[in-house]
Amino acid sequence: MTAKAKTRQLVETIGELQYLLYAGADRSLLVVLQGPDASGKDGLIRHVFSGVNPQGVKVTSFGEPSKVEASHDFLWRVHLRTPAKGEIAVFNRSHYEGVLAERVRKLVSREIWAERYAVINSFESLLAESSTEILKFYLHISPEEQLERFRRRLADKSRHWKIEEADYDDRKLWLEYQTAAEEMLGRTSTKIAPWYVIPSDQKWFRNYAISRIILRSLRRMRLRTPEPQADIQKIKRKFHDEAEE
Amino acid sequence: MTAKAKTRQLVETIGELQYLLYAGADRSLLVVLQGPDASGKDGLIRHVFSGVNPQGVKVTSFGEPSKVEASHDFLWRVHLRTPAKGEIAVFNRSHYEGVLAERVRKLVSREIWAERYAVINSFESLLAESSTEILKFYLHISPEEQLERFRRRLADKSRHWKIEEADYDDRKLWLEYQTAAEEMLGRTSTKIAPWYVIPSDQKWFRNYAISRIILRSLRRMRLRTPEPQADIQKIKRKFHDEAEE
Repeated sequence: MTAKAKTRQLVETIGELQYLLYAGADRSLLVVLQGPDASGKDGLIRHVFSGVNPQGVKVTSFGEPSKVEASHDFLWRVHLRTPAKGEIAVFNRSHYEGVLAERVRKLVSREIWAERYAVINSFESLLAESSTEILKFYLHISPEEQLERFRRRLADKSRHWKIEEADYDDRKLWLEYQTAAEEMLGRTSTKIAPWYVIPSDQKWFRNYAISRIILRSLRRMRLRTPEPQADIQKIKRKFHDEAEE
Repeated sequence: MTAKAKTRQLVETIGELQYLLYAGADRSLLVVLQGPDASGKDGLIRHVFSGVNPQGVKVTSFGEPSKVEASHDFLWRVHLRTPAKGEIAVFNRSHYEGVLAERVRKLVSREIWAERYAVINSFESLLAESSTEILKFYLHISPEEQLERFRRRLADKSRHWKIEEADYDDRKLWLEYQTAAEEMLGRTSTKIAPWYVIPSDQKWFRNYAISRIILRSLRRMRLRTPEPQADIQKIKRKFHDEAEE
């Protein structure tokens, strides 16, 4: 079987387990996606989470903070979007921008971002203790592949609307981003919330690898159809009474 | 072609237009689903919106209000979940519970619910003026079909967790619900936010009819790939400079 076909199978099984997660409503899953522009975060979401019932999946893209968001601490807007029990939440970018773009673009001082690793770890422990499984994926692409993808975007008029000059300019900061990413991975990969670095030059590999990890994590939850809340026998009796009327 | 296959095609096209809606980010779509228990609201969402990229679709199920929600007016929690520009929001039950279950179960007085039709119409005008297309579907099933579906749920252990005694007891109020639904349809079906009553005893028909209406509504928006925000020529020059380095 090809990797693509295998991924489709994995995604289908993810959909089935998501139904049990939703039904049980006592655990949740948080999927964090980080990676440079054009690393394929949007594509990954489209491939892995289309096909899962959107009733139990909430995707949030964290862009430029709004005025209200910026007037709070950096975790505030993120905390609002964490998954409720029974839900899968997907973060397209996340609180990790606080130690990546904000650091590299010098939007905050070293004193500020250097404190954030510990704050993030403590925040994620809190989520984990509240029955949230956390999976963090860093989509790694080479600068050459990024250039190639930018080239294809520039050649395709239907994709011009997605292009921002700042994304392109970030290429000059590639090494600084790499340093920031490495420190982030080292400081915030924990047992309860590990980082997975996913080689993402090949889209089929990216989709396959991430689907597998998500599925494994859902399988480990040993999700089962929940026990009935109602007194089924009593309702059955009512039902038979009505049928005989 | 069978209706099921046709529905799959419609859903695929809905997915394509949703991408343009998301890209353009200047319009939004609100889909409201109402109907008795077992009328198929969950199934409709699974069939029509799985397959659409969850990045642009937000589904909210409105159940029993939380303590905080109940301490606000009945539109407060609903307003929070209306679609942002570029999004599709799906309401599994909605503010209409305020003139259906709350009325029939006598949770609010007639003076309160009787005022709500005008308030709802004004609220929906506000959304429409803010570029939100509103489609409201009432999933109609016969009491016999509901009984049959309850019977199948009771016979299937894996679905016992979904059963609530109150749903069953609501059958005694079938006529009251019908009266409330008819008044709701008459008072709140407006040009900008029409109600569609969907015969839903047949699941394939329900899915097909609703997909068609949603697709027609998206088509009427005449969605186009948005104009680029960035100066593409300038970026192309930068790109060529880098390539030549």
